[in-house]
Amino acid sequence: MSSPKFAELTRALTLLPGVGQKTAQRMAIHLLRRREAGLLLSHALNMGMLEIKECTHCHGIADDEMCDLCADDGRDDGLLCVVESASDVMAIEQSGAYFGRYFVLGGSLSPIDGVGAEDLNISKLQRRVQDNPPDELILALSATTSGQTTAFYIQSLLKNHVPCISRLAQGVPMGGALEYLDKLTVGQALHYRVREN
Amino acid sequence: MSSPKFAELTRALTLLPGVGQKTAQRMAIHLLRRREAGLLLSHALNMGMLEIKECTHCHGIADDEMCDLCADDGRDDGLLCVVESASDVMAIEQSGAYFGRYFVLGGSLSPIDGVGAEDLNISKLQRRVQDNPPDELILALSATTSGQTTAFYIQSLLKNHVPCISRLAQGVPMGGALEYLDKLTVGQALHYRVREN
Repeated sequence: MSSPKFAELTRALTLLPGVGQKTAQRMAIHLLRRREAGLLLSHALNMGMLEIKECTHCHGIADDEMCDLCADDGRDDGLLCVVESASDVMAIEQSGAYFGRYFVLGGSLSPIDGVGAEDLNISKLQRRVQDNPPDELILALSATTSGQTTAFYIQSLLKNHVPCISRLAQGVPMGGALEYLDKLTVGQALHYRVREN
Repeated sequence: MSSPKFAELTRALTLLPGVGQKTAQRMAIHLLRRREAGLLLSHALNMGMLEIKECTHCHGIADDEMCDLCADDGRDDGLLCVVESASDVMAIEQSGAYFGRYFVLGGSLSPIDGVGAEDLNISKLQRRVQDNPPDELILALSATTSGQTTAFYIQSLLKNHVPCISRLAQGVPMGGALEYLDKLTVGQALHYRVREN
């Protein structure tokens, strides 16, 4: 069964993140049994790749030049939240705990993967902050080496241009049992313990 | 960030097997950063859904009316191997241990999921066997309840039409350590033990 067309479809499916040869083969066979679904996905991908834009203000995902969050007059211009990717914006929006503006870096500094400051929207962030400085810059970056490196870099770059730079709290996640948490998290939770009285 | 186009793309990606909302979102953002890859996948899906055919002989995957395995004169017509899906054909071909013909059922009997004999190519298999009986029918079905049910059903249907019906051996898989195998596999391996002298 050496079908070059099937091989081409399988190879294309491995372009998806986390999809290897075996999974791609399974996906291809699944879609060949439901061809309308495969065509629907093909059309959605074509539409998405050609029509989904990057917001010119926050560099998040937008259907037009500006995303609906940047276009919304009701949000607090005094707060600017810096995130790595558009999915982080969605995660924060879902929390319902934030009503300010966003700025999407498009990744985090990772010299080992060849990602430097020039590959991210860091100089655009610098311009954004200088042109229209917020009262507070919230660095909502991942608690990973590259996320923390990026936070440190931005902090040293912008500390003289913003009155307040903050970062997300670290500690015990909701529903987390102490005995199953790693020692670094427990250490941070203890170090940043909050007085209750 | 309520982008209807992004939501549409994400929803379409959940049509892939094993892809939920979160994974689809991650895939969409990954592809939006590499739009040429996304367009390539869109084209491959479109091509695949419209051009990949089902072999009229074995019901496997084919680029033309007949797949290259059915068209190959060099294979043994005396052996017919019944499998559940086209990926099983690929797995057996990769083993290099089989040179006969194939027949793809398109699934296995599973009343709980509403899959009956009329949803599979079982009547076509019956016709294929009656028109052109092989010397041996190999039931290469999964060692699952539905696979074994299907094997039993086919066996009772065709036992008077084929001189020999066989099934795959069950036992210790290559590289398998006894202590990590489930008790049913160990039991089968003992029951079907092979004399060495």
